[in-house]
Amino acid sequence: MSVTAPQGFRAAGVVAGLKDSGARDLALVVNDGPSRAAAGVFTRNRVKAAPVLWSEQVLKGGRVRAVVLNSGGANACTGPAGFQDTHATAEKVAEVLDDSAGEIAVCSTGLIGERLPMDALLSGVDAAGGELTRGDGGLAAADAIRTTDTVAKIAFRQGAGGYMIGGMAKGAGMLAPSLATMLCVITTDADLDAAALDRALRAATGVTLDRLDADGCMSTNDTVLLLASGASGVTPDEAAFTALLTEVAADLTRQLLVDAEGASKAITIEVVGAGSEDDAVTVGRSIARNNLLKCAIHGEDPNWGRVLSAVGTTDAVFEPAHLNVAINGVWVCRNGSVGDDRDKVDLRPRDVTITVDLSAGPHSATVWTTDLTAEYVHENSAYST
Amino acid sequence: MSVTAPQGFRAAGVVAGLKDSGARDLALVVNDGPSRAAAGVFTRNRVKAAPVLWSEQVLKGGRVRAVVLNSGGANACTGPAGFQDTHATAEKVAEVLDDSAGEIAVCSTGLIGERLPMDALLSGVDAAGGELTRGDGGLAAADAIRTTDTVAKIAFRQGAGGYMIGGMAKGAGMLAPSLATMLCVITTDADLDAAALDRALRAATGVTLDRLDADGCMSTNDTVLLLASGASGVTPDEAAFTALLTEVAADLTRQLLVDAEGASKAITIEVVGAGSEDDAVTVGRSIARNNLLKCAIHGEDPNWGRVLSAVGTTDAVFEPAHLNVAINGVWVCRNGSVGDDRDKVDLRPRDVTITVDLSAGPHSATVWTTDLTAEYVHENSAYST
Repeated sequence: MSVTAPQGFRAAGVVAGLKDSGARDLALVVNDGPSRAAAGVFTRNRVKAAPVLWSEQVLKGGRVRAVVLNSGGANACTGPAGFQDTHATAEKVAEVLDDSAGEIAVCSTGLIGERLPMDALLSGVDAAGGELTRGDGGLAAADAIRTTDTVAKIAFRQGAGGYMIGGMAKGAGMLAPSLATMLCVITTDADLDAAALDRALRAATGVTLDRLDADGCMSTNDTVLLLASGASGVTPDEAAFTALLTEVAADLTRQLLVDAEGASKAITIEVVGAGSEDDAVTVGRSIARNNLLKCAIHGEDPNWGRVLSAVGTTDAVFEPAHLNVAINGVWVCRNGSVGDDRDKVDLRPRDVTITVDLSAGPHSATVWTTDLTAEYVHENSAYST
Repeated sequence: MSVTAPQGFRAAGVVAGLKDSGARDLALVVNDGPSRAAAGVFTRNRVKAAPVLWSEQVLKGGRVRAVVLNSGGANACTGPAGFQDTHATAEKVAEVLDDSAGEIAVCSTGLIGERLPMDALLSGVDAAGGELTRGDGGLAAADAIRTTDTVAKIAFRQGAGGYMIGGMAKGAGMLAPSLATMLCVITTDADLDAAALDRALRAATGVTLDRLDADGCMSTNDTVLLLASGASGVTPDEAAFTALLTEVAADLTRQLLVDAEGASKAITIEVVGAGSEDDAVTVGRSIARNNLLKCAIHGEDPNWGRVLSAVGTTDAVFEPAHLNVAINGVWVCRNGSVGDDRDKVDLRPRDVTITVDLSAGPHSATVWTTDLTAEYVHENSAYST
């Protein structure tokens, strides 16, 4: 199902020959309308891949007919020629759909700094155009955007009145800080205009995909797109739509977290008692990026000192002597000092929750991360696909 | 030699019993004058260990009679009781030396969040007081401050007119961002006042110890102290003294870099063409903290795309299309895109140099880091000593 769960969407995933493995590597998601309203959020990295630069322009128009996505190459740091490749890809999709390239979004993922094999890619677009379906196409598309992902990530929910939201995502490394975790396409058959979609998408990703920080490395290609066909004829309440969209985004976020490269633990960092939500996120990210703590959790060592040392590097409002830390529910640090017996902490389960109470206000935020493992090092020492 | 290379200093390193291993774990460095002028720089982490809070107060007076240092426990996040332990340690040293506790600096390193075994520690101070020497004491002290350091780090240089600067340092993990890498004591028999020492120390550490960023994890205990006995009777030119001090600090920095936990590569990141020195340092640190790049260098993969993606996360002045990157002298990225053949890069040597040209101005800076290895993960998953 995934992106084809809502009415009005077809999709395909094919083998274009971009990956040496012979696996699917090109996906096409088509919105057959009647609406083409769309919104997008993109990486905040200042070094942006060609498809990000292209798709940012497309989304300014608030309309998307189709999204073409490829794995097997990021088309980042490829200069003007790389941008021409993205443009040519959009033109090819437009030709296949007999539509305008200006409403074709493009996403790429894979190695930075290499040109895409355009003959293979454009032939792949032709092939995908011939395989567009409402059913299996959504799964094939989700499969085709995988790089080091071990599984395809899909999610869908039904809203009041019968409209649907569906989505797919990929991302296993370079899962990072700023907005949108790698590639994600979410579709809906609700009837909402581009401005409403944009508000809903920013609200939903702001507390889900944007707060997943597996390795602190911000991608050049991160893109999250939301496409609405309006085919259900339902115009939902915006708050209810945003809540449902947030559920879908949270579901995909969780799937990305659990499948992150080399991870053996899924770590939820809850920051409470913060002076502001920004402070809570800042503290959460600082903890999420502390390699020593991530190693300790991997070793099932409730090393709360490493939590405090990470908190101490931030400019959030707090007093060191008022910090409290719980690991899996045991308050091992109280008032900045030794709390309950750390031997009571059971770190054997895959899921780990670290709660930090800043004792500075009523705000809170949750950030997710993984442990740091030898497998992560191995995978990223050898990665060149 | 180390801290006892200059005249007027005695030192000792003893087994106090703080470490389970039975290795030396307590060091004492005593300045016999005639001067006691001193300066210090401390971690910028807001969660500061008790000995840092204590020593910051001592250094405000600009005079230090002795420094007592222990491994086997950081005395961080130990609350008011931990601060009393530090105070009691300084009082004990004062008693042994028949001096004032207000001029005794204290440094600790080891696990955060546990009280020190004070009986053992105070007995150790007694023992150290009985073993103070000018010769071997300096080496024993350097040995006693090791935690996961595989070797003791010492350095010394002679200045014009015959004065000496000597130093010792420790630090293998939590080697980080802000000022002073773990514990470092530098001594000199030059005759300079506290203000001159402070200027020289900040200048020297600012371009050496402060730019070593092995794992991005800022310690709660980082301390660098500079003690002057004046025993040589030489008052050197301040610029010449600063240059010599910088040499000693750079020597110690290099030793810390090469011995960092699990490291198989010593990476020098040169940022040139920056709009300001701050920009150059910011970009250098961002690269130094990019786990994916650190894994790639470990795998001897000249993955310059990961360099650019790290640069892109900063707010430094640059245009993505004007970035150039060389790895070990091969300009693999020119104008933000593919440059010379990456297969020409030889990453087999231990020393790796990454040069980033921001094409934005005349400023530059160098930051040092290590690769990320399975050994780092292993060492920090198991560490609890």
